[in-house]
Amino acid sequence: MSAAQVVRRVAVFGGTHGNEMSGVYLVKRWLQNQEAISRPSFQTVPCIANPRAVERCRRYIDVDLKMLKMLIDDLFYSMEAPPSTAPYEVHRAVELNKKFGAKGESFDVIIDLHNTTSNMGNCLIIGSSTDSFTLQMAKYLVQWSGLVCPVFLTENPAPHLKMADTTSMSAHGIGLELGAQPQGVLLADVYLRHERLVHTCLDFIHKFNQGEIFPPATLEVYRILHVVDYPRNKDNELTAMIHPELQDKDWHPLKPGDPMFLSMDGKTIKYEGESTIYPAFVNEAAYYEKGIAFWATQKETLNVQELQVKA
Amino acid sequence: MSAAQVVRRVAVFGGTHGNEMSGVYLVKRWLQNQEAISRPSFQTVPCIANPRAVERCRRYIDVDLKMLKMLIDDLFYSMEAPPSTAPYEVHRAVELNKKFGAKGESFDVIIDLHNTTSNMGNCLIIGSSTDSFTLQMAKYLVQWSGLVCPVFLTENPAPHLKMADTTSMSAHGIGLELGAQPQGVLLADVYLRHERLVHTCLDFIHKFNQGEIFPPATLEVYRILHVVDYPRNKDNELTAMIHPELQDKDWHPLKPGDPMFLSMDGKTIKYEGESTIYPAFVNEAAYYEKGIAFWATQKETLNVQELQVKA
Repeated sequence: MSAAQVVRRVAVFGGTHGNEMSGVYLVKRWLQNQEAISRPSFQTVPCIANPRAVERCRRYIDVDLKMLKMLIDDLFYSMEAPPSTAPYEVHRAVELNKKFGAKGESFDVIIDLHNTTSNMGNCLIIGSSTDSFTLQMAKYLVQWSGLVCPVFLTENPAPHLKMADTTSMSAHGIGLELGAQPQGVLLADVYLRHERLVHTCLDFIHKFNQGEIFPPATLEVYRILHVVDYPRNKDNELTAMIHPELQDKDWHPLKPGDPMFLSMDGKTIKYEGESTIYPAFVNEAAYYEKGIAFWATQKETLNVQELQVKA
Repeated sequence: MSAAQVVRRVAVFGGTHGNEMSGVYLVKRWLQNQEAISRPSFQTVPCIANPRAVERCRRYIDVDLKMLKMLIDDLFYSMEAPPSTAPYEVHRAVELNKKFGAKGESFDVIIDLHNTTSNMGNCLIIGSSTDSFTLQMAKYLVQWSGLVCPVFLTENPAPHLKMADTTSMSAHGIGLELGAQPQGVLLADVYLRHERLVHTCLDFIHKFNQGEIFPPATLEVYRILHVVDYPRNKDNELTAMIHPELQDKDWHPLKPGDPMFLSMDGKTIKYEGESTIYPAFVNEAAYYEKGIAFWATQKETLNVQELQVKA
């Protein structure tokens, strides 16, 4: 049995990456009219996380806002005013932390809306296997959103594999990573799925605040293992691409001997690992520069504790 | 009966838009090894058309290279050295024209490789309904490439509807516009289809040079009529998106009364034109800034004259 504090403030971020359009347009709409995301027991605040990147329809201006916390973890939490020469996103991160983070109004939950060019469907990104509140929220989405929601768990003991996470400013957080959607494109279907998932999150939070007890459960997750890069030449250019048999197969098992890449002159390169992995973020546009062809994950079943609001 | 000059030089352009990846990677490969695109009767020259945009994985640096000719038609053909303050793509256009255009080595055919986020399949873009050489090449691709190839005809009497065309530097030219592929993403399937189409073009040209007679034929084309923009507010922001029933339906008939857009709050906006149109470039990422939700086209059947090389 796990008891969590009542939720007073929820932030919904769109445009953490400025060219991921369904979050951008949903948050813009909610900034005009908050009725749809209002619930009686808490305050919901929509926010365009990286407005300059949104204006220019780019992922970021100087550095990736999502990666920032990882790079400047201390700064993110401690600096009041970064030097004027700091990258735009450092300034913006400090602003966001003042408004939403531990030093500001202390938001309880951040919901961060993302898109990917990978065929990941309605992916839920969570950072902890022990935060009962977020796990129960993910379980609620899996059960009640009416959508198939694979859960991507970024928790990993290796520090260099710690994934960035804008939601870590708040007590609890979830990333809603929907695909496949090209950068700079708004697909109505993705927009509607994103909208439904946010509503389902808010419904969960309201029920939680009202005292509903969420029983013990299990939750199937895909936990990150490591990244796999494209084959490259000495100039760091790709010499192979995702194999057609792996393309769009996020969450499907990749077994030793399965086709993984196709070289530019048509040769198949097989997966030669020792055990089955479950690829995710397969062929994400923004990951070419980061050296990631896909994330290798393993499938696990987590035990989720019963949850109730603290009396 | 139409007789055309023997073809001596063919250019294959990739990276006219720096984030359209299948053309970029094919041309990079052919720059390393030209064997695959060599044919005995003419010279083939691969070229990265906008190298700085390719380096930064962006459509363009200052202005769209594809649109340039339309904007500065005289300059493109006449200027030897643009002022140093001119946009990067103006400099590059002058360079390209010196190398490939009428003032340079005078290339006979340009094949320009593009990608679109629209679901346009293996689209052939041609600029004239009277150039028998290009029409017969398109017909050959339709018949012999083994791929379904809709033909997009940019010929239109209204000057403001003249579509830009990098291939217009040469006597004949064709755009190979493959989709759907997100910007900055390389899909093996699209790469392989692009490769096959280029090979089929080169085979056609070689047969033509060798004296093969291409008999009179008909060719189904989609001729541009006008553009349709998204509904927008006073700040020029979208207030609606492509309707799910229109998304991915490039080349399908759109009839009066059919759903066209879906407003951000879920209302269907219907097509209210008087006659059936055939949309193309539906939801192309690069066209948001150009005010284009899709191109309206009409279906026509062209008569194509018999073609033979000039004796």
